Amino acid sequence: PALDRTLPNVTSSATTPIVTLRDQPCPGDTEAVRDIISSSGFFHDHEIDVAIELVRDRLDRGSKSDYRFVFADLDAKTVGYTCFGAIACTVGSFDLYWIAVHEACRAQGLGRRLLDETEARIASSGGRKIYIETSARPLYDPTRRFYLACGYKEEAHLADFYAPGDGKIIYVKTIG
Amino acid sequence: PALDRTLPNVTSSATTPIVTLRDQPCPGDTEAVRDIISSSGFFHDHEIDVAIELVRDRLDRGSKSDYRFVFADLDAKTVGYTCFGAIACTVGSFDLYWIAVHEACRAQGLGRRLLDETEARIASSGGRKIYIETSARPLYDPTRRFYLACGYKEEAHLADFYAPGDGKIIYVKTIG
Repeated sequence: PALDRTLPNVTSSATTPIVTLRDQPCPGDTEAVRDIISSSGFFHDHEIDVAIELVRDRLDRGSKSDYRFVFADLDAKTVGYTCFGAIACTVGSFDLYWIAVHEACRAQGLGRRLLDETEARIASSGGRKIYIETSARPLYDPTRRFYLACGYKEEAHLADFYAPGDGKIIYVKTIG
Repeated sequence: PALDRTLPNVTSSATTPIVTLRDQPCPGDTEAVRDIISSSGFFHDHEIDVAIELVRDRLDRGSKSDYRFVFADLDAKTVGYTCFGAIACTVGSFDLYWIAVHEACRAQGLGRRLLDETEARIASSGGRKIYIETSARPLYDPTRRFYLACGYKEEAHLADFYAPGDGKIIYVKTIG
């Protein structure tokens, strides 16, 4: 799908910021992803390392990588991204591995635009189902509300999955 | 734990067959795994390729690999195995990726012995939870009964996960 370069609800700077969505990672994206994910304060270092590793895999292996991306650049700075991919040994099921927007750019609709664009790309690749896994901890209440607001449904709850007292919730959206 | 080399319930050969369990893969295990998994007739070629790739990863990367194994050798022929590993970004959760016994050696308790040994190794690595994912198709009824008989509980059912009409069931066993 054509990329939408307008962002009418961002009006805080004198010049209207331009958001660009792109799917090709650049070498600088490893540091951008570190900044974006670190900014939330939610993640451990080893989790941030995993996120960066996926970007490196795509940079190294190109379209042979199992990981695909949508990046959001705001006035030439990368401020959010999604990472997703087809689930091996399935017909049309995709995982959304990461969706993150820099803390300084929250509440501007960027997450929703990234997710919409990601869903459109998955649909055009033959996707039927999109799965998102997240923690059941109260810290993630806003995250879970965001997924529900975007049409995802809770399909499973694995108790104590991440750690004792920290379950995993699996959301799914049926598309196409 | 010490490996149990007795198999009292196998009495079909003149000399009692000796089952050996081991965790170190050998180069020949890629072909053994192909034979074992192909023998069921359940799996597509690309699924068999995935299983073999995990053995190769362990052979190439040794203990740095994310995949661990228990192999069952019967009279010097490898006839069954499990592949398992710690789930990244969790405390004590493990996935059992594969458990398979050659069709010619079914109903001799080998699957149970492989699973018992695997559970013991996971427990001694600090594991709390073991997850097994399998298809909801009728083809897998005996597989699912085996997991239930081994103390696993169905914790989730993701409809149409593998393909339309082919859901995924997630079993879990709490250990330790």
